[in-house]
Parts: sequence; structure tokens; C-alpha cells
Amino acid sequence: MNMTDVALLVIDMQQDFLSPASPLFVAGGPTMVPSLERALKAARFANESIIHVIRQHRVTGIDVDQSRRALFAETGGFLVAGTPGAEELPQLAPAPGDFTVVKTRWSAFFATDLEGLLRRLGAHRLILTGVQTPNCIRATANDALSLDYATVVLSDATASQTEEIQMSNLRDMTAMGVEVMTVSQFEQSLGMQGR
Amino acid sequence: MNMTDVALLVIDMQQDFLSPASPLFVAGGPTMVPSLERALKAARFANESIIHVIRQHRVTGIDVDQSRRALFAETGGFLVAGTPGAEELPQLAPAPGDFTVVKTRWSAFFATDLEGLLRRLGAHRLILTGVQTPNCIRATANDALSLDYATVVLSDATASQTEEIQMSNLRDMTAMGVEVMTVSQFEQSLGMQGR
Repeated sequence: MNMTDVALLVIDMQQDFLSPASPLFVAGGPTMVPSLERALKAARFANESIIHVIRQHRVTGIDVDQSRRALFAETGGFLVAGTPGAEELPQLAPAPGDFTVVKTRWSAFFATDLEGLLRRLGAHRLILTGVQTPNCIRATANDALSLDYATVVLSDATASQTEEIQMSNLRDMTAMGVEVMTVSQFEQSLGMQGR
Repeated sequence: MNMTDVALLVIDMQQDFLSPASPLFVAGGPTMVPSLERALKAARFANESIIHVIRQHRVTGIDVDQSRRALFAETGGFLVAGTPGAEELPQLAPAPGDFTVVKTRWSAFFATDLEGLLRRLGAHRLILTGVQTPNCIRATANDALSLDYATVVLSDATASQTEEIQMSNLRDMTAMGVEVMTVSQFEQSLGMQGR
């Protein structure tokens, strides 16, 4: 286990959020994957902690948000544990030493052991990546700030349904105290040159 | 104590958010106060539970969000318990039977006893009012949905710095499952005629 001040979170980069046929498809997701890969590579290079946060549901949907239970029933379910839709994209999948946290709601902190894990790792600064910006990224950023973590969102390693949604959410998060930076700026902050 | 299925939350309607001289002033706040008063009156008429949620800090600022500690020090502090800046607007102040919950972060659920209180009241549906929409209203709505409350935001009894921020946040919350309605629609839902 690395003791690192920084942890990079890869949030919800699962097939059911990134496949156009899925009811949960995030339109801006697929094109930012290469940029998220770069961020992940930079974090590995710097020996930072890497935490994969994934959303999973039981096959009956008993644990799905009330606001989505009808959709879950109508569509035959999504993000069901053990199904292909719940899997992370293979190019982002955990390497040895990475951590995985499973959640059922938007925030990575909600009813998970993420906070205890971060305390053990000694992390005080979180780098957020993944989908989608207005929901899981923002909810996680909000809890992270409330828990006094220095909180960074990588603007080109996160995504939304539209560019306007992406930009308005980055603006609101900046106003709350989130540091928004690009993957290139993140690489530079680690002493790596941009590509 | 009323046992009611519905609770109306009045969030952060304090002088330091609503006075133009305050560093935390929410520009859209003052003009929506009369409309929030109407919502409060309607909720009282319907015997719904009313919960005032206020943000308060210790005079040293030890409990202020990290992202605002510099601002707190530079400005001589804000929302300090016992000072005029921490007081609710007099026209919205608690009536006998109302509840007050004190918080130090954005979400009304964060490190407060709100959830236990709502359980005792039997509330399953929350009506959110107050300031400001992208921060405290949205963070509270997010936790409320995650906790499976039916969640309503009153579009004209909440406010932001700008109309654009207000609209983009209402749009994002609608996409998450929040029901957005006007105060008039809220009055109608209680069987009251609009004015």
C-alpha cells in the first residue's frame, strides 16, 4: 500500500454509462477516455493511490435510487453486479495495488468505506475523474469539500451529456472551492512534461 | 409535534447571505423573499412540518470549510453564532412548533440530526426553499434523493447569484429526479388557490 497524500478517483467508468445503447449513456463520455487514461498513467507514475469507484445494483433493483426504480424496471435493469454493463472499461481496469469502492448512489462517500480508506492512505487531496460531471462527480466533490479534502476535478477527464452542462457544473464547483485543471496541468503538477 | 408526510425546509435565509455588504451575499436572494413567505404560509396552513436550516460558525472559524477559511479570516468572519449576521430574516423566523437544525456545511444532512428528525416526524417528502441553489439547495437535494426522499425544489423560493446559475441548476436537479415547481403550484398541490 502506498502512503500518499493524493488519491485519484476513477468514477463510474462502466459500460452502462459509456455504451450508446444504455439508458444511462453519458454522451460526452467516450471521447474523453484517452484523456482519462493519460491521467491514470500520470498518477501511477507518481505512485499516487488510485481508487476505482463503481456503481452496482442488485438484480432486483431493490437498492436503486427511488427516482430511477421505474427506469430500472422498464429497461430490464442496469449496472447489475456481475453483468457486462457493470464492468469498467477494460483500458481503465484496476491494476495490482489499486482499490475499488462500490456505491449505489451519486456520491462516492455515500454509504461506502471511502472515507476510512482515504484516512488509512493518508490522502488529503483528491483528483476526481469519470462520469458524469453534474451527478456523481459533483456529489463526490461536494462531500469531499465538506470533509475538508483539497479537491481537484480534471476538466477533460470528466464528462457530461452536453458541453453546456459540463461548463456550468465546472463553474459552480469552482465557486465552491474545487480546483479545476486539465490533464496536462495535472501532469505538469507531478513534474511530468505534457505530451 | 405534527406527524406529517411533508416537511418544508427553509435553508440559510440568514442576514449574512441576504445583506449586500456581506462577502456571502447571494444576489438573487432578496427579491424572492416574499415568494418564500408565501410558501411558508401555505405549509403552515397545511400543518406541514417546518424546519429552519441555518449555517453557523464558531467565532474562531475553526469549523469553517477549508475552502473558505481564508475568506473568513480576511473578512473578520461571517455567520458567527450569536451575531446579527447569523440571524434569520425576521419575516421568516421560526414560529412555535417549527424546528431548527444548525449546520456548518452545504448539505442540511451533513453532520446534523436532520435525518433522525425527519424519521420521527414521518416525513417522506421534502420541499426545499432558501439560498443558494447551486450550493446548499443542491447539496441538500442530492442527499435527500440519495436517502430516498421525494424531493421538491420551489423554483421561485430559491435563489442564486444569477438567473443563468439558477436555471442550469434547476435543469441538472430535474435530471436527477428532483421535482421542480413554483410556489403557486405548491399552493395548488395543497388545495389552496393561487393568489
